[in-house]
Amino acid sequence: MTGMLSDIKVLDLTTFLSGPFCTMILSDMGAEVLKIESPPKGCATRQTPPFIAGQSAYFMSLNRGKKAITLNLKSERGKKVFLQLVAACDVLVENFRPGVMDRLGFTYQRLSEVNPRLVYAAISGFGNTGPFREKGAYDMVIQGYGGIMSITGQPGGEPVRVGYSVSDLAAGLYGALAVTGALRSRDRMGRGQYLDVSMFDCQVAFMENAIARYFATGEIPGPLGNRHPSIAPFQAFKSQTGYFTLTASTDEQFANLCDALCMPQLKADQRLATKRERVRNVALVNEIFGKIFAEKPKEHWIELLERHKVPCGPINDVKEVVESPQVDARGMIVEVEHKTAGKVKMAGPPIKASLTPLAVQGPPPLLGQDTDSVLAELGYSSEEIAAFRAVGDV
Amino acid sequence: MTGMLSDIKVLDLTTFLSGPFCTMILSDMGAEVLKIESPPKGCATRQTPPFIAGQSAYFMSLNRGKKAITLNLKSERGKKVFLQLVAACDVLVENFRPGVMDRLGFTYQRLSEVNPRLVYAAISGFGNTGPFREKGAYDMVIQGYGGIMSITGQPGGEPVRVGYSVSDLAAGLYGALAVTGALRSRDRMGRGQYLDVSMFDCQVAFMENAIARYFATGEIPGPLGNRHPSIAPFQAFKSQTGYFTLTASTDEQFANLCDALCMPQLKADQRLATKRERVRNVALVNEIFGKIFAEKPKEHWIELLERHKVPCGPINDVKEVVESPQVDARGMIVEVEHKTAGKVKMAGPPIKASLTPLAVQGPPPLLGQDTDSVLAELGYSSEEIAAFRAVGDV
Repeated sequence: MTGMLSDIKVLDLTTFLSGPFCTMILSDMGAEVLKIESPPKGCATRQTPPFIAGQSAYFMSLNRGKKAITLNLKSERGKKVFLQLVAACDVLVENFRPGVMDRLGFTYQRLSEVNPRLVYAAISGFGNTGPFREKGAYDMVIQGYGGIMSITGQPGGEPVRVGYSVSDLAAGLYGALAVTGALRSRDRMGRGQYLDVSMFDCQVAFMENAIARYFATGEIPGPLGNRHPSIAPFQAFKSQTGYFTLTASTDEQFANLCDALCMPQLKADQRLATKRERVRNVALVNEIFGKIFAEKPKEHWIELLERHKVPCGPINDVKEVVESPQVDARGMIVEVEHKTAGKVKMAGPPIKASLTPLAVQGPPPLLGQDTDSVLAELGYSSEEIAAFRAVGDV
Repeated sequence: MTGMLSDIKVLDLTTFLSGPFCTMILSDMGAEVLKIESPPKGCATRQTPPFIAGQSAYFMSLNRGKKAITLNLKSERGKKVFLQLVAACDVLVENFRPGVMDRLGFTYQRLSEVNPRLVYAAISGFGNTGPFREKGAYDMVIQGYGGIMSITGQPGGEPVRVGYSVSDLAAGLYGALAVTGALRSRDRMGRGQYLDVSMFDCQVAFMENAIARYFATGEIPGPLGNRHPSIAPFQAFKSQTGYFTLTASTDEQFANLCDALCMPQLKADQRLATKRERVRNVALVNEIFGKIFAEKPKEHWIELLERHKVPCGPINDVKEVVESPQVDARGMIVEVEHKTAGKVKMAGPPIKASLTPLAVQGPPPLLGQDTDSVLAELGYSSEEIAAFRAVGDV
């Protein structure tokens, strides 16, 4: 065993982001992931721009290391093949709208009769229960429903979407955790289970601090621009050459900040003496420090503050991120050799494990590249496979 | 076994957000989590406002279901007790800056000699390797370094912080996944391992789409307000009564949108006919639909669009989130009975599992509430414990 899940086979019925992100993590953990796509076009994200030599960067960034077959789950032949695959796998992940799998005839109950050890993970917008279960949901919709848009952005400004699809990413990651935990249960109890992970629930979980503040005070949290609600200073400040970040979360860090600026008298100022007072007087904090920081370039302040052990840093753009020496040292940009798009770079797995390390298993698959070999493994002859293809079953 | 980790004991040396969020998830999964805090004040977040009857809402929201002892890890007595606890536990989670545990004498190597089955998870700002490893890091700093602030906010506007501490939350969640995967490896191989999870790496992983677009096009992604970079329409629109969200990710959904608005001619417009064209002509998309949506209240549009199967929804504030019927149906707000603060409500676990469900194990602990019983279990007499307390070792 070289990976945490290297004995595990995953059937992947997912599309868009949350599901593919989940199964990509399982692949990085060593699982063999077989992505099933509908003929003739496959996953909708294969058509999402931009493209590298005709291959969608969106698709490639989420589907590395997976095998891929086409299979028409609405045809009798497709259903039969699918159930054969279910019998031979450990995990099924899908992110259809609730009800779709049932209408295809693939209830959890039926699939668990075929394979009682099956871990079945359903990722959806609102989950498989409750009054919103049938609502269509994409990241944007869930960012709105889940509350994050109400606390992101400038006070009084337009609503702002978190720049990545955090509802999808969080649900995919919680899904991978749920699958891994359920596999551990299965190892011990011999039985799989049904996992119901909703993007909305995951957003509620991520809103934990805003929710706790609301219940503690009765005040509805609003957007704070680039500030933290309960710590000050903990924000972006404008220097002579643009913004940089600074946090002084502890009294010691605040003292270090005052010392770095040669302003020890601030430590004795009653309005700034405690964490509570600094939050209460955040406007004063902004005024005092904003004025100072405006006078010199951000590079000066970052160098000075780091020397005085005050956490701070630049606001990197994507180019600066991928070219960061820390990204290089951590191997966080990986390169795979795609069959037609050539060398493709993407973000790598962020869990660094000493005994069973995560690793990218290979490039993203071409549509249906493994159909023939997977069906052959199930006992179908090349003539049969050709016949399936002729009628659109694969 | 009732939880995925109900046979597991976790030693929790964490503070602030990433680490406590990780161990809270492990607790929800059934693990027994023992939080170790420094006497006399304990976790710094116990002083973070706002408070409920003197108890920090920030602390309570992250530490439910945990036991808590005080222990001075710098004293000889504290070190001895700690090593006894390491010998008896399965998992250790800490989120000190790299080097702190080594200086305390607790290298992974030493701890794994004490307990070869130990799964050791270190969560830090930049990880335990690389040129940035010693940099101080809080969520704000990592949001700046990791790139999310460069793609969140209005084009040309001030930098915007994601309204929750997404760098901490993501690292905590990846940490919980790493621990669960490593426990599965340990179940099978008999050995623990060292897990190195960095907030920065996790942010790079979450930036996957922006990074993929950058490598595909060479263009540096910028902030897009409330739009999606590769799909249109996929944004917030302003109605007569405020903003609502709308996504048409597929051609079918776009057709539904046009039909809902009784504007079938838009489907035939060459400039809007494909996903690619709609992204290219997003300004036109905004103009056409923005004008229409401005004329009636959002409630009208949401009702109409939902009926036509176009994913859309409100932009909820925190009060609307916690009062949502879906949150109620999914049990996403849980209530615990705190020893001094009374009934405390908080966000619940978002993984719904049929066989080994997650569950909140109990209220957040008072500082040191379990010190006596845990030390008694290790064989210390009440006289000894009183003596330790007198010199500040517990």
